[in-house]
Amino acid sequence: MVPKGFLFSAVEAAIKKPGRKDLALIYSEHEADMAGVFTSNAVKAAPVRLAMQRIRAGRGQAVIVNSGNANACTGRRGLDDAREMTALVARELRVRPSRVFVCSTGVIGIPLPMERIRPKIAELIAATGTHSLDDVAAAMMTTDRFPKVVAKKVTVDGKTGVIAGVCKGAGMICPRLATMLCFLLTDIRVESETLDACLRDAVGTSFNRITVDGDMSTNDTVLIMANGLLGNSPLRRTSRAFRAFRETLAEVSFELSKRIVEDGEGATKLVEIEVKGARTEVEAEKAAFSVANSKLVKTAIYGNDANWGRVMAALGYSGIGLREEKVDIFFGPVPVVRRGVSTDRDEAATRALRKNEVKITIALNMGKASARVLTCDLTEEYIRVNAAYRT
Amino acid sequence: MVPKGFLFSAVEAAIKKPGRKDLALIYSEHEADMAGVFTSNAVKAAPVRLAMQRIRAGRGQAVIVNSGNANACTGRRGLDDAREMTALVARELRVRPSRVFVCSTGVIGIPLPMERIRPKIAELIAATGTHSLDDVAAAMMTTDRFPKVVAKKVTVDGKTGVIAGVCKGAGMICPRLATMLCFLLTDIRVESETLDACLRDAVGTSFNRITVDGDMSTNDTVLIMANGLLGNSPLRRTSRAFRAFRETLAEVSFELSKRIVEDGEGATKLVEIEVKGARTEVEAEKAAFSVANSKLVKTAIYGNDANWGRVMAALGYSGIGLREEKVDIFFGPVPVVRRGVSTDRDEAATRALRKNEVKITIALNMGKASARVLTCDLTEEYIRVNAAYRT
Repeated sequence: MVPKGFLFSAVEAAIKKPGRKDLALIYSEHEADMAGVFTSNAVKAAPVRLAMQRIRAGRGQAVIVNSGNANACTGRRGLDDAREMTALVARELRVRPSRVFVCSTGVIGIPLPMERIRPKIAELIAATGTHSLDDVAAAMMTTDRFPKVVAKKVTVDGKTGVIAGVCKGAGMICPRLATMLCFLLTDIRVESETLDACLRDAVGTSFNRITVDGDMSTNDTVLIMANGLLGNSPLRRTSRAFRAFRETLAEVSFELSKRIVEDGEGATKLVEIEVKGARTEVEAEKAAFSVANSKLVKTAIYGNDANWGRVMAALGYSGIGLREEKVDIFFGPVPVVRRGVSTDRDEAATRALRKNEVKITIALNMGKASARVLTCDLTEEYIRVNAAYRT
Repeated sequence: MVPKGFLFSAVEAAIKKPGRKDLALIYSEHEADMAGVFTSNAVKAAPVRLAMQRIRAGRGQAVIVNSGNANACTGRRGLDDAREMTALVARELRVRPSRVFVCSTGVIGIPLPMERIRPKIAELIAATGTHSLDDVAAAMMTTDRFPKVVAKKVTVDGKTGVIAGVCKGAGMICPRLATMLCFLLTDIRVESETLDACLRDAVGTSFNRITVDGDMSTNDTVLIMANGLLGNSPLRRTSRAFRAFRETLAEVSFELSKRIVEDGEGATKLVEIEVKGARTEVEAEKAAFSVANSKLVKTAIYGNDANWGRVMAALGYSGIGLREEKVDIFFGPVPVVRRGVSTDRDEAATRALRKNEVKITIALNMGKASARVLTCDLTEEYIRVNAAYRT
């Protein structure tokens, strides 16, 4: 299920190890409205800097993406390379270079192998329409174990539109975006301010609420393209279908973010940390991230050890207002801490941990705000993947 | 080498697994001046709460310490147990209970096995003087692989005094103290405000500048006892020997903190991160900790991978003011990044990583402040130790 008017292509340019596609194109037959959200890391990759300039116009027609090289910390040459990639695509597609975006993911600090990318652009453009969104997802993968695509329908003006999304994740996944690229595509026409607002809402409760390792990347990018080929009247806040669109976009984003965590480097479990009863949502989020990023909590979950003391310690150093004697903690449905002390239910809690999906709920009992963060366990495999990443 | 007038004892109370001593006593023949620094975790263990009250008087004569159980998150009962431990010791030693401190380290959330501790107190007191400071160090160990004792001499008023220190560390070692207990003992008489100030200085550049896993404990405590048995006139800021005392105390603390990191759970390398040229010391420290706590940096060091891009990314999300194009990075003596881009010296840098001690120097080139943080690499063994800690 793909929105109307989007065509895909993917080729092998030997940026990654041979035998895997690593250069892909998303092309919209009509120029689309676009919005974007980018890494908050002060060190931004060249393609991110370029995209942040171009997104201001709110319009675009193509995204070229490569894996295997992040084009980050590559100085002036990196910016030149990013610009050249979009110019080559623009020339072949006969669109304005400013309407083409480039995204890169992979190793930091090594210039792009432009001598291998340049000769592949014509082949990439020629193959447009002969590949699927899954092929794009596969070409974006670095340490990802599986491609990530989600699509859902939304009815607007009696017509069925589609929101599809593709992303890559795996490592460097952390608060406020991570080595995470996501492209959201829809044929629904959306007024541009509304598109931007809906994207920010969706990212706020999905990609900004996941953490694999607490490391924030230099390349994170979420782009949305709305090409309007459904022929609906442009969606605004006051439109009847507005809520359905906003919620579906949030759902697509949330499901993609969940797949990123499921595919976290070395992960064996998907872990949801929910903090309730906080004084503010900011404090709820801070507390949830403190627990979700604790190496000791993550290794305990991996070891099926209901070691809630580590959860308490992580809450304690999260920097939020906290009353130890008010805290309740649940592992799955099992209350392990009541009013700050053990309920002696560690055995039942251990059983709750022996699952592929684990939920830890924390009630601070100080207010009404809550936040939910997705993470995964920390395993020997994470170390192996990251100790040997470049070798 | 031990300061005059301090006696030691250690027994087995079956708090840890059988066969290892887990209950120890430090006793000063004369009441000593004392100062203390405690965890900034909002969740504080019962013994920490008690010690924070008692340290206000600035006087003490004995410290009882147990490993195997942190007496944290144990509610009212935990406080009662901590008080009872000091009361039992005080009765046997015939000192006031308020002059006895208790410190605990180990598992969180399980009440102390007082039924096993109570009957051992008499034996502990009876054995006082028959054990060494090394025995105390051994009885404090949890996942530590070796006991940690450091002693140095200081000349005051022509007499040779001693500052000795004993500590335990290993896991939950993080900015602003960690599961870290340290007792510093000296026979030098020090005026109490001076003692407190020197302790804070020493902790600021030692225990507060190390990180193993970024997790901050509920139990961290550093206590200093100065019993004055050297017979010098009380040291003040204006005393001739003041600088020597302050510096030696800082050295003892720094060496102990270094041993904690060397003994970091699963660590194979001691890593020093130095940030120079920051605008302020706070920013230098923040940047150094951001790099030192990055799982991706720590695994790269473990894998001898000169992946400086991860260092750049960690600097970028540290939250300090940063100009990417001004940053220089060295791995050992090898410049790997100059003005934000690669120097193509990765092979030489890889050789610098193949050592037991690794230094990463970062020049931000924005100001004159600097900070140095000690950490270790992150290995599969860390995961194994922590996934199975309680099983």
